Amino acid sequence: MRQFEESELTDEVIRSLDETSNPRLKLLLQELVRSLHDYVRRTGLTFEEWEKAIDFLTRTGQKCTPSRQEFILLSDVLGISMLVDAVNHRERDGATETTVLGPFYVGEHKPMPHGADISEGLEGERMYVEARVTDLGGRPLGGVPVDVWHADDDGFYDSQKPGYEEKGPSLRARFVTDGDGRLAFRSILPCSYPIPIDGPVGELILATRRHPMRPAHVHFLVAAPGYEPLITHVFIEGDKYLDSDVVFGVKNELVSKIELRDDPQMPDGRAASGPWHLMTYEFRLKPGHGTAPKPMLASAAE
Amino acid sequence: MRQFEESELTDEVIRSLDETSNPRLKLLLQELVRSLHDYVRRTGLTFEEWEKAIDFLTRTGQKCTPSRQEFILLSDVLGISMLVDAVNHRERDGATETTVLGPFYVGEHKPMPHGADISEGLEGERMYVEARVTDLGGRPLGGVPVDVWHADDDGFYDSQKPGYEEKGPSLRARFVTDGDGRLAFRSILPCSYPIPIDGPVGELILATRRHPMRPAHVHFLVAAPGYEPLITHVFIEGDKYLDSDVVFGVKNELVSKIELRDDPQMPDGRAASGPWHLMTYEFRLKPGHGTAPKPMLASAAE
Repeated sequence: MRQFEESELTDEVIRSLDETSNPRLKLLLQELVRSLHDYVRRTGLTFEEWEKAIDFLTRTGQKCTPSRQEFILLSDVLGISMLVDAVNHRERDGATETTVLGPFYVGEHKPMPHGADISEGLEGERMYVEARVTDLGGRPLGGVPVDVWHADDDGFYDSQKPGYEEKGPSLRARFVTDGDGRLAFRSILPCSYPIPIDGPVGELILATRRHPMRPAHVHFLVAAPGYEPLITHVFIEGDKYLDSDVVFGVKNELVSKIELRDDPQMPDGRAASGPWHLMTYEFRLKPGHGTAPKPMLASAAE
Repeated sequence: MRQFEESELTDEVIRSLDETSNPRLKLLLQELVRSLHDYVRRTGLTFEEWEKAIDFLTRTGQKCTPSRQEFILLSDVLGISMLVDAVNHRERDGATETTVLGPFYVGEHKPMPHGADISEGLEGERMYVEARVTDLGGRPLGGVPVDVWHADDDGFYDSQKPGYEEKGPSLRARFVTDGDGRLAFRSILPCSYPIPIDGPVGELILATRRHPMRPAHVHFLVAAPGYEPLITHVFIEGDKYLDSDVVFGVKNELVSKIELRDDPQMPDGRAASGPWHLMTYEFRLKPGHGTAPKPMLASAAE
């Protein structure tokens, strides 16, 4: 057909995708056309608004760098990341709840020994983290790689700070669980922080008059063979942004009471230099499969 | 609210946009969330599929350069550009039909005198174009800037070829109508061509087993004060891709019979070097307002 009435155009575009080899891709693309065309019709999108959307998407892609993923951030603030999480984790069966990966995951971290301090050279209140990885029955899972990462006392991830490429990782490491499923490390207490607002997503946050804050948390990515990869955070109880996380990522079960201690020794027997916080958490994995996410940063995409 | 059931999440995200200052932006964003969330639910989008989408969008943004707009191309091949065109041009009242801007518009062109050859130095069959701009009553509109651009005999636009930045425009110019609404220029006959397939949109075309071809055409952008800007093409009758344009852009009224002539003189009295094609078209503008589109290229977006 050569010329389409407005009402025929959508069907013609959907028909043009009929020969897509992969049936799942065909469904995803045809439903995408249906959704986007319906959106354009329902809103009567103007040419100027379309232009602004093209410009916004272009700048979002161009803001991505080897250490920043602006499209994930966009997905996060529109609640899409948490919805994808929800539709893929409908039955937890007692497994630990999941939440967003976030835009600051940079791929597999450098392994460090138990007890290591991942905050070397940084200011902040001292924290000791003890975690354990088990199956649904509470049986320990040993030899499991656990990537951890979190923001510093000013609310920035290492990859957001100048000189990251040369300095290398900070507040970011991999630990492998021991035979009892345990891992432990030292760090500083993370604080609540704004998502990066110097890009297109920041413009969106400003225009919608939302605050850009996330409550304080530590990211964990636990990937054991034979189990679903667990992408989650542990949030710190009492944070003022727990009820209005800009990426809708908080789940009650993931909020942990952090104990303030003044014992002169930390749990591994080494001396504490003053008061310190103890974070403990047990991660329960669900049998399954899947691979840990690969970082989707601009350099990887080139 | 701290933790959302899957069913509550969409409402919570929509509610978070309630304070958006601009009411139209508020509607556009809230409906976007509704559409995208519905899409994720309807398709049960997996985490791996979400990852691929993020990667695809990132690479699409990063493929944009000062002379290439991959997001417009994506909008074009999904029929979104033509749908935006359709919903904004429901009543033509006899005005010339519109079609896609396409990804090769680079902004206001350099003015050239009537009769100028915009194909200098290029191989191809010779063409003479005569056009006229009028209002709906057929009254000539003088002093109107008309941007024209088209592909070469190999199917490439100037901006797709190496050395474009240094060489400057080719097959691309602005003409201003005379008192009788007329303009005329020399060029070569454009041919049908594939859209650029070396980027993410090309991957999509390949995966969907569509052909990447557009039928031969010349772009016109006519912007007269007091009239709606007219973004259109003139297509060449007989082209084999008129019925399957990869961007769904063909309208019957825009297909023009091109006459092959062997007169020794072209219409402006200058000598022809051999047989030549005559393209004629009359553009009828609708009263209205609006500004001509600005180019949405990566450099402009930085």
